[in-house]
Amino acid sequence: MRTGIWLVGARGSVATTSIVGALALRAGLAEPTGCVTELPELRSPSLPTFADLRFGGHDVVTIPLVKKAEALAAAGVLPARLVAAIPDQLATVESEIRPAPADLPPTEMIAAVVADLTRFRDRYRLDRVVVVNVSTTEPAPPSHPAHAGLSALDAALLAGETVLPVSSTYAYAAFTAGCPYVDFTPSTGARLPALAELARQRRLPYAGHDGKTGETLVKSVLAPMFAMRHLRVRTWSGVNLLGGGDGANLAEPAANAAKSASKQRVLGETLGYVPQGRTRIDYVDDIGDFKTAWDLVTFSGFLGTGMRMEFTWHGCDSALAAPLVLDLARLTAAAHAAGRVGPLTELAFFFKDPFGTGSHSLAEQWGALRGLVRQLDTGTGQDGGSRAVDA
Amino acid sequence: MRTGIWLVGARGSVATTSIVGALALRAGLAEPTGCVTELPELRSPSLPTFADLRFGGHDVVTIPLVKKAEALAAAGVLPARLVAAIPDQLATVESEIRPAPADLPPTEMIAAVVADLTRFRDRYRLDRVVVVNVSTTEPAPPSHPAHAGLSALDAALLAGETVLPVSSTYAYAAFTAGCPYVDFTPSTGARLPALAELARQRRLPYAGHDGKTGETLVKSVLAPMFAMRHLRVRTWSGVNLLGGGDGANLAEPAANAAKSASKQRVLGETLGYVPQGRTRIDYVDDIGDFKTAWDLVTFSGFLGTGMRMEFTWHGCDSALAAPLVLDLARLTAAAHAAGRVGPLTELAFFFKDPFGTGSHSLAEQWGALRGLVRQLDTGTGQDGGSRAVDA
Amino acid sequence: MRTGIWLVGARGSVATTSIVGALALRAGLAEPTGCVTELPELRSPSLPTFADLRFGGHDVVTIPLVKKAEALAAAGVLPARLVAAIPDQLATVESEIRPAPADLPPTEMIAAVVADLTRFRDRYRLDRVVVVNVSTTEPAPPSHPAHAGLSALDAALLAGETVLPVSSTYAYAAFTAGCPYVDFTPSTGARLPALAELARQRRLPYAGHDGKTGETLVKSVLAPMFAMRHLRVRTWSGVNLLGGGDGANLAEPAANAAKSASKQRVLGETLGYVPQGRTRIDYVDDIGDFKTAWDLVTFSGFLGTGMRMEFTWHGCDSALAAPLVLDLARLTAAAHAAGRVGPLTELAFFFKDPFGTGSHSLAEQWGALRGLVRQLDTGTGQDGGSRAVDA
Amino acid sequence: MRTGIWLVGARGSVATTSIVGALALRAGLAEPTGCVTELPELRSPSLPTFADLRFGGHDVVTIPLVKKAEALAAAGVLPARLVAAIPDQLATVESEIRPAPADLPPTEMIAAVVADLTRFRDRYRLDRVVVVNVSTTEPAPPSHPAHAGLSALDAALLAGETVLPVSSTYAYAAFTAGCPYVDFTPSTGARLPALAELARQRRLPYAGHDGKTGETLVKSVLAPMFAMRHLRVRTWSGVNLLGGGDGANLAEPAANAAKSASKQRVLGETLGYVPQGRTRIDYVDDIGDFKTAWDLVTFSGFLGTGMRMEFTWHGCDSALAAPLVLDLARLTAAAHAAGRVGPLTELAFFFKDPFGTGSHSLAEQWGALRGLVRQLDTGTGQDGGSRAVDA
Ligand SMILES: NC(=O)c1ccc[n+]([C@@H]2O[C@H](COP(=O)([O-])OP(=O)(O)OC[C@H]3O[C@@H](n4cnc5c(N)ncnc54)[C@H](O)[C@@H]3O)[C@@H](O)[C@H]2O)c1
Ligand SMILES: NC(=O)c1ccc[n+]([C@@H]2O[C@H](COP(=O)([O-])OP(=O)(O)OC[C@H]3O[C@@H](n4cnc5c(N)ncnc54)[C@H](O)[C@@H]3O)[C@@H](O)[C@H]2O)c1
Ligand SMILES: NC(=O)c1ccc[n+]([C@@H]2O[C@H](COP(=O)([O-])OP(=O)(O)OC[C@H]3O[C@@H](n4cnc5c(N)ncnc54)[C@H](O)[C@@H]3O)[C@@H](O)[C@H]2O)c1
Ligand SMILES: NC(=O)c1ccc[n+]([C@@H]2O[C@H](COP(=O)([O-])OP(=O)(O)OC[C@H]3O[C@@H](n4cnc5c(N)ncnc54)[C@H](O)[C@@H]3O)[C@@H](O)[C@H]2O)c1
Ligand code: NA
Ligand code: NA
Repeated sequence: MRTGIWLVGARGSVATTSIVGALALRAGLAEPTGCVTELPELRSPSLPTFADLRFGGHDVVTIPLVKKAEALAAAGVLPARLVAAIPDQLATVESEIRPAPADLPPTEMIAAVVADLTRFRDRYRLDRVVVVNVSTTEPAPPSHPAHAGLSALDAALLAGETVLPVSSTYAYAAFTAGCPYVDFTPSTGARLPALAELARQRRLPYAGHDGKTGETLVKSVLAPMFAMRHLRVRTWSGVNLLGGGDGANLAEPAANAAKSASKQRVLGETLGYVPQGRTRIDYVDDIGDFKTAWDLVTFSGFLGTGMRMEFTWHGCDSALAAPLVLDLARLTAAAHAAGRVGPLTELAFFFKDPFGTGSHSLAEQWGALRGLVRQLDTGTGQDGGSRAVDA
Repeated sequence: MRTGIWLVGARGSVATTSIVGALALRAGLAEPTGCVTELPELRSPSLPTFADLRFGGHDVVTIPLVKKAEALAAAGVLPARLVAAIPDQLATVESEIRPAPADLPPTEMIAAVVADLTRFRDRYRLDRVVVVNVSTTEPAPPSHPAHAGLSALDAALLAGETVLPVSSTYAYAAFTAGCPYVDFTPSTGARLPALAELARQRRLPYAGHDGKTGETLVKSVLAPMFAMRHLRVRTWSGVNLLGGGDGANLAEPAANAAKSASKQRVLGETLGYVPQGRTRIDYVDDIGDFKTAWDLVTFSGFLGTGMRMEFTWHGCDSALAAPLVLDLARLTAAAHAAGRVGPLTELAFFFKDPFGTGSHSLAEQWGALRGLVRQLDTGTGQDGGSRAVDA
Repeated sequence: MRTGIWLVGARGSVATTSIVGALALRAGLAEPTGCVTELPELRSPSLPTFADLRFGGHDVVTIPLVKKAEALAAAGVLPARLVAAIPDQLATVESEIRPAPADLPPTEMIAAVVADLTRFRDRYRLDRVVVVNVSTTEPAPPSHPAHAGLSALDAALLAGETVLPVSSTYAYAAFTAGCPYVDFTPSTGARLPALAELARQRRLPYAGHDGKTGETLVKSVLAPMFAMRHLRVRTWSGVNLLGGGDGANLAEPAANAAKSASKQRVLGETLGYVPQGRTRIDYVDDIGDFKTAWDLVTFSGFLGTGMRMEFTWHGCDSALAAPLVLDLARLTAAAHAAGRVGPLTELAFFFKDPFGTGSHSLAEQWGALRGLVRQLDTGTGQDGGSRAVDA
Repeated sequence: MRTGIWLVGARGSVATTSIVGALALRAGLAEPTGCVTELPELRSPSLPTFADLRFGGHDVVTIPLVKKAEALAAAGVLPARLVAAIPDQLATVESEIRPAPADLPPTEMIAAVVADLTRFRDRYRLDRVVVVNVSTTEPAPPSHPAHAGLSALDAALLAGETVLPVSSTYAYAAFTAGCPYVDFTPSTGARLPALAELARQRRLPYAGHDGKTGETLVKSVLAPMFAMRHLRVRTWSGVNLLGGGDGANLAEPAANAAKSASKQRVLGETLGYVPQGRTRIDYVDDIGDFKTAWDLVTFSGFLGTGMRMEFTWHGCDSALAAPLVLDLARLTAAAHAAGRVGPLTELAFFFKDPFGTGSHSLAEQWGALRGLVRQLDTGTGQDGGSRAVDA
């Protein structure tokens, strides 16, 4: 199953780490640590192999991929020896990264993206291309009536109105080009009724939002622990210190608000009540790509006795995110092949702010993910078409 | 279902907190925080209510229960107002705590315990008595051929040989008296083939070992998180600082070794490999009943990038343990009533070192526990008769 | 040396803890833990004894002192037995707490405070009264030309203009009544040229600002450690989680800004450069009187190698502040007796944002404090008058 | 002032980092971060410059210096670019590292070391050679009557008895060759009356013991903070997790005991009492050269209120130690030049277990160090002649 992965934000840290990692895995130079689809429980013939993957993408900056990779190596995110070992493969991907169309009327912007996606699919004779948004987090856009349905949206776009944020413009273009869409960021992406309608119309699956890589990952196992033990969480406060490009952007209040909100969702939905406290994101340039998060949880136990727990997480965000990007692209490709349409709620395992109303407990999300893979495996042998009927 | 809870170590911190808490719950003076059998998902008509419970026990010390409770209140483990509110109820329990038989030949020791249990059951016309060991952790005993089977064991006991540690002597007596047995400590308890044989013969269930209340509880959700994310745990080191009676005893190298071993089991079994590092238990008298545990986990992610997490847990051990003692007694009573025989592996949720070969992931253990409760519920409606025969 | 301590904010947590503690010390019911003037190196015959102290003050709330003390005891800030042991002494202080004058033209407000101070001094035939501001932190006021000199200030006050924040109004009144003034808060207090002029005119000493009790105290020893070892601090980020009355007020952005600024001063002045990062204060009601602060310091060592340190401080703010309030009042009283005039820069040891340009290293501040005490001791034997000439 | 630094353990991590760093500083390729003698307060014309330094040493292993340096670079201890930039300079040092004499009678061992030191001094026409012990920590040796005085020691050595541990044999040889001796390890070194006598006889200074680089450094500022604030430290517990060669050796119980003891000394001597708790050192191979130490301090404040502080230190031991090794060698060389004889107690700033009875407060040790440097400076201007006689 020849599969394209089209990265919006292709020269960013997450994208570059994903690309270098996939190329290194294909070349047998690295272990698939961090790739959950390579765990025995999830390995599946229905997924494209690393050798099946081809990369392309858009970005607004022009730093060469290899320079970005070297910068990441210098920062300890990637081993320098891997970057040095795959110059030709990186050059090939470089040639598939296009300048993000900009300063165009909405319909032309969409058409330009569709053209880029189609050319990419054709050139490599790919079975499908999955578009993954790993670009800079946007502020939440103002709501607009045109978001409510596809015909209203199309009318507004034709009238030249800028009613969609960039992430949603990409989702629109992806669906138009027949591509599934994954949003790894907290941006709006496909999360609008009009776009859901478009995806259904084109019979495409999509997934999101906001990769769950650090503090929220830990929350998604600790909050259920408190719940299962009937311990009352009184306060949960957190601070995230991070540098890098993502950090710089999150220092913007609007993006910060979008991100902080998606980080707290797990607590309310797991515990059934919202404890006091908040999660802060602070940009500290010198911290670089290794984020430090600290959380304090105070809780009461039997007869009201007060207790506390704190944790510090010191993780490399890009190294945590990149394998998940590959997992998501592979799973979404297989779901598309199997005829799945609409939001892939079984991928909640990967997201801070997932589609669907399922549990935020990592263990339950893991169960759902295993269920999806089993379904894909069964589907593979049978017939994608018939399953499309059900979806 | 009138149910007795017979506590071995009845004047200890865990026992006293369990007793005060149950009496306060019965009097409507406290919330059942920390009692997992009071969660909506686990509440069940098959369990005895708090009003159904009666307490008795053995101890080697003579400090009055109310004095112990006041000391715990002064240390912040219990609210003083609760202790003050239930003087008569505490006096009733006081009258049911017997000096632990000692300095007797094994058969006489067993006979004395059996007599105490029988008298307690009769006096309160209890449907059953669950014996729960919350006494001081023993060193692991040397192995002995008489442990291998019941007839060999009986022969050795009749010959006056001391082949059983105290915890196992209590298990023997409990089974002989027709009582289920729960071991909340890492001691040997019912964990000998000869005793398993005796329990089967008497058609009794049992459970253990070593209540999972602090650091290991956290491990049982964090280790699966690393596993589910395919992150490679390289080292996991921990230190537990604790005072109190339990801490003083664990300062003894042999008891410490028993406890440390049961603390690491979760890692190997969850991860499938044993990371470097060890768990230490240090006695620091002044720390008192509020234990502090610190754990450092180093792990590698995608392309080998090194990361780390650390947590500090500051919990009141007795306040964490006591509601679980009540949960275990209630569940084991219901299992007995339902005719269950042998090790209750579905209670792994509660233990560091559980019976059975099931998962050490807290979420999977939770699933098993829910399964047990559903089974007990169904049993209640369907087929009370056959169970009545066993009970 | 009969000494009055007049507390602005007399019903607050810090004030109440100071009062209860001083009464308990006088009654021989407690140890002077936390009182630095009771250390062998600083004990001095020139200081008033605990038996010499009398308390009064102003507040805008009317909660009885004993109720406030009981609430603090319930929260674990004070031992309940101490509060119960000194009912009569508390009643005496209660009778000396006046409603804070409010809604009056500035000159009348000042006159009212002067009258209260004078009556208090006369009633107890006190040698002197030290006014200590422990009331709610104010936002930083806008600057005003009348702050620059005493005659401009007096003109504005006479014209009925509200040019002084409350803390400075109290300082004005204190000086007018011949009382030294200590500001334990980050509010403006005596920190205006016009008030410095008034203090000089009345030959009075004063001290401030912002008691150094938690995270900043730790900074004042850690920052010099990095400096003395020639290690380069790259980032220093902190978060303070606190509840209580002070926390609620600091949740106000303006007060928060005033406090955060005084918290970072130590870094720039000790290191000679300002590392990246910031200090946050978050109000979390349920945290109560026990504040938790977490700081992360990243630094580089030899050949640029990156390293890090983090600390968590879990302190009871009022219990840390109260003994310092007593120390400050005793030292300032002795300095007044010895004829000292103007800012007591040797008291920098106690403050986050001290008067003067001295070192922010706690050890050097300790040296200066010892110097002051030695000077007071010598002065005691001699003659306050002549020392007034030098000051 | 041409100065030799002779490193016992010259192929170890600390030695290699010291050598690479000094060569890089000489070549202008690095900043002197971590070198306290390069702080404005301590810079002194009396010290040898980096250009004045020449390196040699002994080791029992034969790994080439450049290989060891590359391994340290791979582990993140050193920048790889520095190692690559100084191949010739490293080769020169390589040629001066001798196999440590072994399996010889004591007098021959001493003679061999003396010969190596003398040849080294002569070949480079050095004014003096400072011997610095950075070899593996030894177990504390049994005491022996020959340690008490020089004549008894000489008699035992001549009789071929092995009464000195290796570190002391090196000290004996150093003194015999007219070289000052610094012990950066907790080993015995010059800490025997007989060796003190020898040093006095040869008019030589010496320094030690056990470089203060991590947890103990932090203790030496935090313990005085608690003391200066009259807060009562109740417990102080610590755990050090470290890998590397030093870690592997410290896993040996005897070396571990030697080290743990020197780590606790600061507490008792600073606080005036020994709080409960202990410091553990655990070897975790995978932790490598970056040690993690965690300490928990519980303390009580005013009226007995309990509080706590914890810190985590994540430092690169060799990067912390190496600049101090250079500082110590430069200061000891200057002290020798200035005619100082006997233990250099003013160097306590650098050591966990210093000579002398001075304060363990880092700030006071800093004061003593500044005093020493001022004295050396004055000596330089005044009375070079008399010192020339000694040198
Ligand atoms: N790393 C993680 O753990 C993680 C987790 C969850 C979500 N995310 C999200 O993933 C995204 C990427 O993170 P990153 O660390 O790689 O950030 P980054 O700043 O390194 O990369 C973002 C890239 O997007 C590009 N870009 C910006 N606007 C664009 C546009 N209009 N069209 C195309 N490209 C555009 C930027 O030029 C940049 O190269 C962020 O939104 C982040 O919030 C990351
Ligand atoms: N508290 C927890 O979180 C927790 C978790 C897991 C296991 N445990 C285990 O539970 C047990 C109880 O803990 P605790 O904190 O109450 O300790 P504790 O020391 O306060 O109480 C133990 C009691 O057992 C009594 N005892 C000793 N030997 C006895 C004997 N032969 N017969 C009868 N009684 C005897 C002691 O006198 C004491 O009163 C310990 O073994 C502990 O390891 C506790
Ligand atoms: N506790 C510490 O460690 C610490 C350290 C440094 C500074 N401080 C400062 O000390 C002050 C007191 O702290 P707290 O915890 O006691 O706060 P609190 O809120 O408990 O007490 C403040 C008191 O001031 C009173 N008040 C308010 N406005 C007043 C006015 N105009 N006149 C007279 N009284 C007035 C309030 O009614 C209240 O009783 C705060 O400003 C705080 O920032 C405290
Ligand atoms: N790094 C720090 O922060 C620090 C702090 C205080 C003390 N120290 C001490 O410094 C010493 C060196 O630490 P390291 O990390 O470099 O250890 P390391 O194991 O890397 O180096 C020790 C070297 O000594 C050599 N050696 C062993 N026996 C010898 C002998 N008889 N003669 C000559 N050489 C011998 C070894 O072969 C090795 O090369 C240790 O004793 C350590 O405890 C280090
Ligand atoms: Na911590
Ligand atoms: Na920590």
